[in-house]
Amino acid sequence: MIPTKAYAAYDPTTPLAPYDFNRRDVGPHDVQVEIMYCGVCHSDLHQARDEWGGSIYPMVPGHEIVGKVIKMGTHVTKFKEGDLAGVGVMVDSCRVCDHCKQQLEQYCVEEMTGTYNAMERDGKTIAQGGYSTQIVTDERYVYSISPKLDLKAVAPLLCAGITTYSPLRHVGVTKGTKVAVAGLGGLGHLGVKFAASFGAEVTMLSTSPSKEKDARELGAHNFVLTTDNEQLKKYKGYFDVILNTVAANHSYKTYLNLLALNGKMIIVGIPPKASEVPAGTLLSNRRSIVGSMIGGTKETQEMLDYCAEHNIVADIELIKMQDINGAYDRMLKNDVKYRFVIDLASLK
Amino acid sequence: MIPTKAYAAYDPTTPLAPYDFNRRDVGPHDVQVEIMYCGVCHSDLHQARDEWGGSIYPMVPGHEIVGKVIKMGTHVTKFKEGDLAGVGVMVDSCRVCDHCKQQLEQYCVEEMTGTYNAMERDGKTIAQGGYSTQIVTDERYVYSISPKLDLKAVAPLLCAGITTYSPLRHVGVTKGTKVAVAGLGGLGHLGVKFAASFGAEVTMLSTSPSKEKDARELGAHNFVLTTDNEQLKKYKGYFDVILNTVAANHSYKTYLNLLALNGKMIIVGIPPKASEVPAGTLLSNRRSIVGSMIGGTKETQEMLDYCAEHNIVADIELIKMQDINGAYDRMLKNDVKYRFVIDLASLK
Repeated sequence: MIPTKAYAAYDPTTPLAPYDFNRRDVGPHDVQVEIMYCGVCHSDLHQARDEWGGSIYPMVPGHEIVGKVIKMGTHVTKFKEGDLAGVGVMVDSCRVCDHCKQQLEQYCVEEMTGTYNAMERDGKTIAQGGYSTQIVTDERYVYSISPKLDLKAVAPLLCAGITTYSPLRHVGVTKGTKVAVAGLGGLGHLGVKFAASFGAEVTMLSTSPSKEKDARELGAHNFVLTTDNEQLKKYKGYFDVILNTVAANHSYKTYLNLLALNGKMIIVGIPPKASEVPAGTLLSNRRSIVGSMIGGTKETQEMLDYCAEHNIVADIELIKMQDINGAYDRMLKNDVKYRFVIDLASLK
Repeated sequence: MIPTKAYAAYDPTTPLAPYDFNRRDVGPHDVQVEIMYCGVCHSDLHQARDEWGGSIYPMVPGHEIVGKVIKMGTHVTKFKEGDLAGVGVMVDSCRVCDHCKQQLEQYCVEEMTGTYNAMERDGKTIAQGGYSTQIVTDERYVYSISPKLDLKAVAPLLCAGITTYSPLRHVGVTKGTKVAVAGLGGLGHLGVKFAASFGAEVTMLSTSPSKEKDARELGAHNFVLTTDNEQLKKYKGYFDVILNTVAANHSYKTYLNLLALNGKMIIVGIPPKASEVPAGTLLSNRRSIVGSMIGGTKETQEMLDYCAEHNIVADIELIKMQDINGAYDRMLKNDVKYRFVIDLASLK
């Protein structure tokens, strides 16, 4: 067993606190990664506080994990000691269903095994995440990371990055596609970077005029204030794709009206309440709404390679493990540009 | 001017009654069709009773029009005297926008001109529909009908037919596609026929066990009772496409759960209230919802030619013009298999 230091939620209301536990020994197909950085995703907070129900405690959150390979199983082929590596939102899946065979393991018919707040497939081990010093994972769910990139800023690519990259690719965003991004947070800021790098004309949709300058610096070409009816009128029927990253409750109608013929609104956020969709707005212009959940193992590696080639990383604020509870408070006020990343050196 | 007999709604509450008016003279690009049959669409009733707001009176409903060409303008090339012809849901559009240029005139950026309950593009003539003896329409919006088919049963193809044919084609339904059709009415029964003729495996989704026999006779291979949780569980994640023709208020969630990876639910009905869409259900399996509105002029002709080749028509009940108000009452009770069609001989 591998002794591991971590921070865990012990229940829905107490602040996260130190927690020591053991990772499993490195099996023939496993890779042991010494965690150097871990991104702080909004879903960490949701699950730590049991806001989605069914949380498993003690819970070590964190699924934007990067670090260094320190040990490999005898059958591991993808990694050698000292390689930089990442682990994302899932650490296992059934591997034999049609979806797994297509390397779309996030849609595994038996459901993927989440990196934390989930039971491992042995049915008895609690999967524990990246607010910790070590992780042991089957190599299928471990990704290679180029040393060219700033490693701490790579961490958010493992969730926020693939969650925006995958659907933009899936709907065919390319040179000249008119893409709007709704919501400028951890997901939205990477959505802007990816869409711009694919050659799209990128527009930020926001309720806050103060976001315009930042959006343009990230690569947005236009900015639409969605509280201004005149601006909405001007962009009616304009966009081919809207990447909707808004996780708060909202009606989809305002955004749908902005879609062009055959336009698609991608949903990657899960608002607590179901959103309303007026059918007439969908029928006009043959519009669609399409859901998307992270990305499979093949595409996650492709995304990381693409980022290395195009020098794309997240904009982050580095924190110590001990500062996590304050970071959660600030995250609730959207007071972060655009992702907190934990420096696990602080826990060693 | 061309004297025309008709039945019209004079206001939202009085039964439809006889109405005489003049059609415009046949212009250089116009075709005059002596109307023989006109289908009765549920939207006729909605608009006659002003249930969508903004109704224009007197209103001659009807947009599933078939008859015989009796006069053509000097520039008309598609028709000669005596040809069978049809007019559907639109009689004009701007003709110059990108969508019109693609012959997707139903999505005209200046909005198509409806066959009734609309102003013609001259801004002063009320467009009047097919509960009448004559219609004069620009040939672009008039379709050729094969004499091989039973003409009275062709009428519903002009709205219910193209409304189901177009999206099934658009999402690529072909041999082996697993298609479910929700709602067995005017649209649904044609959806079943088209999907089956494309080689799909067709399943009827219904809340009423009594529909099973009829659905199978129309070409459905399976039947799922959506009030039975065991049956729903069995078909979870099963369908590639769901054609949702339900116009009553309903949550989309029950149907969405039945969609496979990359599955699409097509919306062609407009429930009075916006439907709720839980984002999580969309994210699972990367599901989509796509709206679709009738079809353009090119595809409407293609659909009619396809029907002639494959011997597809609607199942209808023929009525006299004088019986329209009773037919509306029965339509509200879903007491029709599956479309009323008016025999305009009764008005001559």
